[in-house]
Amino acid sequence: MNGKRRVCFPITSRAYYGRSQLLIRKLHTHPGIDLQLMLGGSILLDKYSRHVADDIERGGFTISTSYFNVIEGGNHVAMAKTACLTALEFTNGFHSIDPDIVVICGDRFEQLAIAMAAAYLNKTIAHIEGGDVTGSIDESVRHAITKLAHVHFVTNEDAHRRVLAMGEDPKYVFNTGSLDVELAADVTTELTNERINSYGVGHAVDITRPFLVVIQHPVTTETENRRHLEETMRAIAAIDMPAIWFWPNPDAGTGEMADFIRHYREQHDAITEKIRFITNVPVDEFIAMLRRTSCLVGNSSAGIKECSYLGTPVVNIGVRQQGRLNGEHVIHTGYDAGEIAGAVRRQLRRGRYEPSNIYYKPGASQTIVDLLAGIELYTQKRFFDAAHVRG
Amino acid sequence: MNGKRRVCFPITSRAYYGRSQLLIRKLHTHPGIDLQLMLGGSILLDKYSRHVADDIERGGFTISTSYFNVIEGGNHVAMAKTACLTALEFTNGFHSIDPDIVVICGDRFEQLAIAMAAAYLNKTIAHIEGGDVTGSIDESVRHAITKLAHVHFVTNEDAHRRVLAMGEDPKYVFNTGSLDVELAADVTTELTNERINSYGVGHAVDITRPFLVVIQHPVTTETENRRHLEETMRAIAAIDMPAIWFWPNPDAGTGEMADFIRHYREQHDAITEKIRFITNVPVDEFIAMLRRTSCLVGNSSAGIKECSYLGTPVVNIGVRQQGRLNGEHVIHTGYDAGEIAGAVRRQLRRGRYEPSNIYYKPGASQTIVDLLAGIELYTQKRFFDAAHVRG
Amino acid sequence: MNGKRRVCFPITSRAYYGRSQLLIRKLHTHPGIDLQLMLGGSILLDKYSRHVADDIERGGFTISTSYFNVIEGGNHVAMAKTACLTALEFTNGFHSIDPDIVVICGDRFEQLAIAMAAAYLNKTIAHIEGGDVTGSIDESVRHAITKLAHVHFVTNEDAHRRVLAMGEDPKYVFNTGSLDVELAADVTTELTNERINSYGVGHAVDITRPFLVVIQHPVTTETENRRHLEETMRAIAAIDMPAIWFWPNPDAGTGEMADFIRHYREQHDAITEKIRFITNVPVDEFIAMLRRTSCLVGNSSAGIKECSYLGTPVVNIGVRQQGRLNGEHVIHTGYDAGEIAGAVRRQLRRGRYEPSNIYYKPGASQTIVDLLAGIELYTQKRFFDAAHVRG
Amino acid sequence: MNGKRRVCFPITSRAYYGRSQLLIRKLHTHPGIDLQLMLGGSILLDKYSRHVADDIERGGFTISTSYFNVIEGGNHVAMAKTACLTALEFTNGFHSIDPDIVVICGDRFEQLAIAMAAAYLNKTIAHIEGGDVTGSIDESVRHAITKLAHVHFVTNEDAHRRVLAMGEDPKYVFNTGSLDVELAADVTTELTNERINSYGVGHAVDITRPFLVVIQHPVTTETENRRHLEETMRAIAAIDMPAIWFWPNPDAGTGEMADFIRHYREQHDAITEKIRFITNVPVDEFIAMLRRTSCLVGNSSAGIKECSYLGTPVVNIGVRQQGRLNGEHVIHTGYDAGEIAGAVRRQLRRGRYEPSNIYYKPGASQTIVDLLAGIELYTQKRFFDAAHVRG
Repeated sequence: MNGKRRVCFPITSRAYYGRSQLLIRKLHTHPGIDLQLMLGGSILLDKYSRHVADDIERGGFTISTSYFNVIEGGNHVAMAKTACLTALEFTNGFHSIDPDIVVICGDRFEQLAIAMAAAYLNKTIAHIEGGDVTGSIDESVRHAITKLAHVHFVTNEDAHRRVLAMGEDPKYVFNTGSLDVELAADVTTELTNERINSYGVGHAVDITRPFLVVIQHPVTTETENRRHLEETMRAIAAIDMPAIWFWPNPDAGTGEMADFIRHYREQHDAITEKIRFITNVPVDEFIAMLRRTSCLVGNSSAGIKECSYLGTPVVNIGVRQQGRLNGEHVIHTGYDAGEIAGAVRRQLRRGRYEPSNIYYKPGASQTIVDLLAGIELYTQKRFFDAAHVRG
Repeated sequence: MNGKRRVCFPITSRAYYGRSQLLIRKLHTHPGIDLQLMLGGSILLDKYSRHVADDIERGGFTISTSYFNVIEGGNHVAMAKTACLTALEFTNGFHSIDPDIVVICGDRFEQLAIAMAAAYLNKTIAHIEGGDVTGSIDESVRHAITKLAHVHFVTNEDAHRRVLAMGEDPKYVFNTGSLDVELAADVTTELTNERINSYGVGHAVDITRPFLVVIQHPVTTETENRRHLEETMRAIAAIDMPAIWFWPNPDAGTGEMADFIRHYREQHDAITEKIRFITNVPVDEFIAMLRRTSCLVGNSSAGIKECSYLGTPVVNIGVRQQGRLNGEHVIHTGYDAGEIAGAVRRQLRRGRYEPSNIYYKPGASQTIVDLLAGIELYTQKRFFDAAHVRG
Repeated sequence: MNGKRRVCFPITSRAYYGRSQLLIRKLHTHPGIDLQLMLGGSILLDKYSRHVADDIERGGFTISTSYFNVIEGGNHVAMAKTACLTALEFTNGFHSIDPDIVVICGDRFEQLAIAMAAAYLNKTIAHIEGGDVTGSIDESVRHAITKLAHVHFVTNEDAHRRVLAMGEDPKYVFNTGSLDVELAADVTTELTNERINSYGVGHAVDITRPFLVVIQHPVTTETENRRHLEETMRAIAAIDMPAIWFWPNPDAGTGEMADFIRHYREQHDAITEKIRFITNVPVDEFIAMLRRTSCLVGNSSAGIKECSYLGTPVVNIGVRQQGRLNGEHVIHTGYDAGEIAGAVRRQLRRGRYEPSNIYYKPGASQTIVDLLAGIELYTQKRFFDAAHVRG
Repeated sequence: MNGKRRVCFPITSRAYYGRSQLLIRKLHTHPGIDLQLMLGGSILLDKYSRHVADDIERGGFTISTSYFNVIEGGNHVAMAKTACLTALEFTNGFHSIDPDIVVICGDRFEQLAIAMAAAYLNKTIAHIEGGDVTGSIDESVRHAITKLAHVHFVTNEDAHRRVLAMGEDPKYVFNTGSLDVELAADVTTELTNERINSYGVGHAVDITRPFLVVIQHPVTTETENRRHLEETMRAIAAIDMPAIWFWPNPDAGTGEMADFIRHYREQHDAITEKIRFITNVPVDEFIAMLRRTSCLVGNSSAGIKECSYLGTPVVNIGVRQQGRLNGEHVIHTGYDAGEIAGAVRRQLRRGRYEPSNIYYKPGASQTIVDLLAGIELYTQKRFFDAAHVRG
């Protein structure tokens, strides 16, 4: 015990890790904070992360503990059990390293499980990115985390209003802007053909010429993820432009989607001959890629958030991001190949958009770190009835 | 598959089982419903439940599956891990019996874990007793369940308002009144000395003369549960009236509280010589006991809910029930022995209260069953911005 | 309870399932036996099994329960935790279906965990294929299962002697011959180019002309599985004959081996252009393939057992099968590419061998089923000191 | 990494901890060894151990990690699941602290699970007390551990012969004598009335006058543990001599046995009025008590081992210790109250025995520590066919 506040940051997915770079670095160097990194879930698996754990340690951070706890299957049962096992193991980890604050990021299913464990251990929980509205199980996860968390860092005004409506104490709800967008504003990396084609499998993509980026994750509340992906594949084939295609996240449904891509690659070489399939790239190159692509297609939150600031045209497919505050750069479509292709063509004709600041505030990470270091901690929550609710 | 709606009722504690009698029986006999009982947690352990599982089967219900998953320790780590293991095992159970609806009751820690598992499996979740405000971890658990659930049966108007404020769809939020209070209104059992003294250990209590009932559960968000229990023990000793004392619930803190009682019994025979220590009694005798006791002391929700209808004087200690809507029959106190004793003496002088209907609506269980049988099911949740929130 | 003996057969890998076909069918139809199939582990995962679970149900068998419990990682930690989770879940399954006998097959790591759970529940355990000597963790697993099991079905005389030496009761140790070899003798399927090239990925193999089969699984007690596999790849490349190559088993080390194959395929198209990579094939086609291949290369037990009866030349690499009784058809090598290639060339020159009966007894499956149906059951084990041990 | 050999000692029960005192202290101070203590199971639970974990830390040892993993129920399901959860958590622990050697003691069910996890992680396993023969599940557990272990420290010649017969490498099997007996020889503590009556509940026992000690643990392979305990209770009541009675171990069956004692105490005060019920006492006082008691009754291994050296008369009940090498000081009986009482009376008439050295070798703990520090480590096991087996 050195008098520092112990801030635990559980990392379970490469996406959150990448986008939290600025925050993690500032937590690491803050004189009043002992940063405790705990790793679990897909971030430990090469197939999703290409040794992110090694990267983390090379970055000078110490990993307090790490747990292999992804249960194979890529279906709902595997997803639920992964969450439960993660929470059980993180309970042991929390018991051992005894954090003062546990920082929960976003709305991934295993993060709710970790938040539950932390709450049962009477830890103060800080939640980043609450209050947004989307589809998929993320919608339920996000708000349930809000009701377990004590300190809230939201990214926009709509979210702020909703977190208050849900009964959180206004003294502990802060609109700091989005970490993802702060990072997007911060990155200056230039992407090269050599770099991008060193990742993944498939055909080389020439990024000095127009290219698409496709990121389509499972929607856990739907049953036709495979068919939906096939529609997108047909749309991209119809456009006939080189594309960088990301493998889906490890949520329920990922099994059949990955299976589809694997079989498609083997059996439709002609269709996939302009596509490079990539698991992930370092976050700075990811942003450089978003900055350069002619259009992002799929259902990634990066299309809503990072691209709003970058002005990148986006075709957002289906319900996964439905309800999230978004700028004019987004065209929303259903799952029909023709509709998707039409929307992409419209964006290609339109070109880039003006940057928007709906998710951007300068210094988001610094604001969060300062609050984590200094805010008064508490554990007993109590529903805060807003004036209009008290009736 | 017989065309019936499969309604799964996970039972993990004797208290919820007892109070859900009317509902379970009506679910069991409804022609459009296949009732699936799943058992786990403390209900399977003799020390808490004296063979409730056997009782259930004698009642003609079939138990779909049962899991031993309480981790010993009686502390926060054990509580958190019990929740995680419960959720992992119930995932297997849900996968196997494939319910259409999972009914989650109240605010116990393991019920949130089960709700999480059910949500990840895309089950429709119905929640009973959301929207109340209390202390302990129950407060966080209750609202987090609300944000995972699709159908809400609340017990009072305050709760109704809060569940809507939290963004739930008004079409799926119903104020049905309290099942506990409906049962309290329904029970006609008379308690006898013979019956009550056949339970538990310690000295015989003559219930034809004035007696107290003490029920003090752990507050998981506090660290001095043992000392608080000792204050109550000293208050009861000072009153010098026979008492029926219930062992604490298996939440974090129960270990030290049970330990305190065990040692106290061994070492302070004089003080405890008017006390009978009981694990639990059948719910109808429990209500008969509440109807007859001179005063209920402690922090049980029965003091707030059942006793409001029965008009039983209550001394409610500490934060556990703080914030819950309550009638005039309750005196709230802190943890000081003198303050507690003073409040009990005031209630003894005052005597019984007029019944209140703040938690009572006739036919609560029938209302719930009819809705479970007929309501349109959905799984994809979406935050419902109330008018005042849309801003 | 219908008076039948409940015989539970836990299936956790496609290999054991395939080779146990005759036994499972006879257990299913025996009038005195209720067959209880429990599924877990890799058999439920498409990537290893292409819907074996569906096949099982199409075969008319009822699956009592199935558990997703493979933890991703392909390393030792994932392997150990998979075993533990499997055992925890099978405990629930055993508790629920209450078998009289649990049948444990072979020496896979998760089968020891299941045997442990069954032993702790006081089930009588029957073990098939004890007493052999090999390398890898299988060696420890196999003998530890023997010491938990009550009835032993061994496949050869050496194994018989060893199981007795380990203190098992001679009345309960039976040399029934190998189920795998009985099946190999039984199968009459002919393999076709169309069938074999419908499985897996890579280039088509013409099986009407000479071809190799490569099956190299991880050796969990070694650290250089990737390098060893690379040596084999170089050997096969040097031979320059079409090859059917099977993906490795999901033991510790499989992660890096699968990774190696994936990257090799992407980057060395010239070398792998004569190779077809297959996850698995139905067992009858597997045997037809062994009957036809010019040489089996790697470390599969099929090379020692099935191929002894079929007379197929085998090059056995490394320690995995070291110590197992084997016929003259096997050439043992280390991990050097040159040594492996040399041995394969020698076998190609030599051609097929005379069949051997060292592992073969007619009617192995019937013998086992009859014993399972009729043998007197017991649970309390006691070390049986052989005469020479009593000293 | 300091060049020291990391020796991990998993402690899961107070009994093994107590009896391993000399060994643990020598491991702690050996200059070539880093001792890693891992705690789990019942040792962390007050009800069994009265804060042994605290004692350990006061002793100057560092606990590497500790896991709450005892599942409540006291039955076979709870026992099996406790073992599985223990192994899962210890896998994480081993992964984190990376021991060179894991020391497994004796034959408790959770130790086999831990040994399995260690084996799957390719750790070298040292086993203390293999080769003995007993009843209960311990018999299976002990020999299964032998087949997973690489280095064997046995306590007597019979055991030595058996471990070799089971195929272990003679270079790695050592008869070091019993640690328990070495400690019994070492302890000089005198027991006082004050000390012994400071433990447990019930009536004070005057140890300056004749008294009995009763230790009867569950036999997991039997179904009538409660009835057997009742017979013993009736026998002790018939003898009418003060007795110190130990609560049963947390094996399957402990639930009903503890329940029996609790109810018996409440309802048969006359019979239990000469009995003190104790959970446990420090190991030095335990030995002082054995040295002084008129007769040890029950089925503890201390009756066979420590008492052989101390010359204390023993009545050993049932199968739990059946088959273990024993001296003349033991009378074996079945479960009949009359038979037990008769045997106790015979022992009381007979008085103390001459000490025996069948389990004793001086310096057992030093021998073991020196071997652990210096022996060449290996992980790949291979059955060692003894001459007479090779056939």
